[in-house]
Amino acid sequence: MVEPKLIKNIKLIITDVDGVLTNGKIYIDNNNNESKGYHVDDGTGVALARLANIPIAFLSGRYSESTTIRARELKIQYCYQGQLDKIFGFKEIIKKYNTNPNEVCYIGDGLIDLPPMDIAGFSIAVPNAHPTVKKQSNYTTLRSGGEGVLLEVVELILKHQKKLNTIVSKMTKEKYGYNK
Amino acid sequence: MVEPKLIKNIKLIITDVDGVLTNGKIYIDNNNNESKGYHVDDGTGVALARLANIPIAFLSGRYSESTTIRARELKIQYCYQGQLDKIFGFKEIIKKYNTNPNEVCYIGDGLIDLPPMDIAGFSIAVPNAHPTVKKQSNYTTLRSGGEGVLLEVVELILKHQKKLNTIVSKMTKEKYGYNK
Amino acid sequence: MVEPKLIKNIKLIITDVDGVLTNGKIYIDNNNNESKGYHVDDGTGVALARLANIPIAFLSGRYSESTTIRARELKIQYCYQGQLDKIFGFKEIIKKYNTNPNEVCYIGDGLIDLPPMDIAGFSIAVPNAHPTVKKQSNYTTLRSGGEGVLLEVVELILKHQKKLNTIVSKMTKEKYGYNK
Amino acid sequence: MVEPKLIKNIKLIITDVDGVLTNGKIYIDNNNNESKGYHVDDGTGVALARLANIPIAFLSGRYSESTTIRARELKIQYCYQGQLDKIFGFKEIIKKYNTNPNEVCYIGDGLIDLPPMDIAGFSIAVPNAHPTVKKQSNYTTLRSGGEGVLLEVVELILKHQKKLNTIVSKMTKEKYGYNK
Repeated sequence: MVEPKLIKNIKLIITDVDGVLTNGKIYIDNNNNESKGYHVDDGTGVALARLANIPIAFLSGRYSESTTIRARELKIQYCYQGQLDKIFGFKEIIKKYNTNPNEVCYIGDGLIDLPPMDIAGFSIAVPNAHPTVKKQSNYTTLRSGGEGVLLEVVELILKHQKKLNTIVSKMTKEKYGYNK
Repeated sequence: MVEPKLIKNIKLIITDVDGVLTNGKIYIDNNNNESKGYHVDDGTGVALARLANIPIAFLSGRYSESTTIRARELKIQYCYQGQLDKIFGFKEIIKKYNTNPNEVCYIGDGLIDLPPMDIAGFSIAVPNAHPTVKKQSNYTTLRSGGEGVLLEVVELILKHQKKLNTIVSKMTKEKYGYNK
Repeated sequence: MVEPKLIKNIKLIITDVDGVLTNGKIYIDNNNNESKGYHVDDGTGVALARLANIPIAFLSGRYSESTTIRARELKIQYCYQGQLDKIFGFKEIIKKYNTNPNEVCYIGDGLIDLPPMDIAGFSIAVPNAHPTVKKQSNYTTLRSGGEGVLLEVVELILKHQKKLNTIVSKMTKEKYGYNK
Repeated sequence: MVEPKLIKNIKLIITDVDGVLTNGKIYIDNNNNESKGYHVDDGTGVALARLANIPIAFLSGRYSESTTIRARELKIQYCYQGQLDKIFGFKEIIKKYNTNPNEVCYIGDGLIDLPPMDIAGFSIAVPNAHPTVKKQSNYTTLRSGGEGVLLEVVELILKHQKKLNTIVSKMTKEKYGYNK
């Protein structure tokens, strides 16, 4: 279902936030404080990507301090928010990493994600994405938004790049103390 | 399943909040602060409706500051809360927009929504609505309350009014920077 | 599946809180503030029961300020918390309302609810209850804990007491402004 | 499906937190306060284990004050957090309880849990665990993470150790006031 040639050259992952790293829900309280639910598995995905030298950037149309905090915890260097025109942010990010659009994997769920998905080399939708987005994407993940999509995507990319076993093994041995 | 003639003349959407824009859950903490989970896709729905000149109003039986904040973020002009008699609020809102009840699409889920659904030109229930409400409604959405119901409803209305492609195209091009 | 004679004489509803009025989840933040998710439909259930003169009391083994606040919002007069021996609270509540155990409907989900379920005239479990609790109960609701169980239970009781249509009609007409 | 001999000698339960005691979601608000959803049934599981003299310890790779608070509420004596190498924490805990690794039941969901699962006498995965973790585990629970996994695990162990009925009976009679 995935065309391997699309993945082979991926060097950078750019992901939308709401609906991908979360299930799209924004919890708003009576004091105008908002909360969003991320998944612990995304942390593992980011760690694996880091060991494989594939940076991950966040690109969100809506601004939320919660997103900034999550990006900081995951040590995401570029977290663009609050701009409806995602092409602008997309171009900024690839310039920082000196990559071409076709070396980018973009993950999205909404109509606003169509433009960056169109120029990215490998575009991924989540199961809860808008039907139009799923239709245009190269691939739809098994995990829904907020259920650890980043881990699934990173494993998918590393597997197609024949690096998964090496990287997982490196992580479990060096970081997790696995001396099996 | 939808009678097209009911939708053709819709000029205004009035929606209940709890159970429609949320899944009906009210999170209450130990400090009497409450939180409710809205969906990011409703923002897209409101944006599409705005481009199509179809205003959206909120009409909730229960009062919650969280609802006020969400309405403000979505730039909803009329947000009526805290009144069990929804006919009163319904009439206030249509007066503001100078519309007739049969030009209104009303979205609800509870017994309290029966009166406004009865006079609205096009009444919509969510899958999680009370059985009586679903039975009386003209249509039941695919998305459950809190899963972006507004986006589905706006797309449904625009589609039947033959405006969907134009409006989506306008949004992706003008707002989202899509120059495909 | 329900034995009508068990319901005919019900004059009081006593319900557990966690797992019945919520899905059993307790959200704990970094400041030791906790939050629980109630359902807006329980408010409708309480309102219908009030119109039918059937009081509702809360009886919870665990103490939580959140529960106190929810009880206050729903104008629940007796809310017993923080006692593992529920027989004690059960007896206190029926004394206040001058009822017999066989006039009580008790709703629960956990092993701690077995003793009060055993003496109540009509015992109800939720689908997410412990298997032993479901087996011992007289009835299991369709709605899961936190999805508006109280509304379902009140409608069930009123239906078997041949009062449902009258009470719903009273509410929609007097409170909701329904003049159909 | 469970090999009884693995369970017969279990004297200690060590469990991961995120994804086991919760569904893996971390709710982050705009003030850098985080919240996680635990299940009330885990409290019953801990209470049963305590009556059976089987201590429970927490071992989490990520640090969260919320976890500390939950551990305190459940009177968990050892709660190790913030260390990616779980073998270290595992060994510390079994030293405290003077147990051997083969007397330990370990519950986990992520790649980080592979090392401790490998040395524990009885390793349990949750349905939402990483496929590799489920494959390596001796058993997968029916309940998902955050749905009261601890109660299911404790009942499973006590059942195989022929103590379940005695312990449940002790709890319902002594604590819950059941004099049936």
